[in-house]
Amino acid sequence: MAVAEIKIELKKGVADPEGQNTKKALELLGFEGLRSVRSMKCFQVDIGLEGDEALKACQDMCRRLLANPVIQSYSVELK
Amino acid sequence: MAVAEIKIELKKGVADPEGQNTKKALELLGFEGLRSVRSMKCFQVDIGLEGDEALKACQDMCRRLLANPVIQSYSVELK
Repeated sequence: MAVAEIKIELKKGVADPEGQNTKKALELLGFEGLRSVRSMKCFQVDIGLEGDEALKACQDMCRRLLANPVIQSYSVELK
Repeated sequence: MAVAEIKIELKKGVADPEGQNTKKALELLGFEGLRSVRSMKCFQVDIGLEGDEALKACQDMCRRLLANPVIQSYSVELK
């Protein structure tokens, strides 16, 4: 049975204050040369389905609950 | 230059209320047969370093800022 990894990130152009503040904090700690830090939310779902069926169910979960389609995009990877 | 994907998840045995509640909400929406849902935090860091150096810097970031070693474990993947 598949374990799906669902990644939900902010669309390009949407402000990511958590990422920006993490970048600032890392720079204050002495990490240099960082170009960007983006924060994301991930879910690991043990879904009890296989292949295409699992993929479709996960995309459905994102559309209906996990992601806000106005500001977030999602990707699903089966493992 | 490498883009690192840092994944921070709760250690086994640590309660994951966000994951549990997400599972309940998905079940209420009609998704059946879910065995588990685990929530994770991810960061995508454009780090301006290469290879081993990038990997070490990311692990250092996790130890010093991003992860709480008491309850969280981290993994770093370079892309």
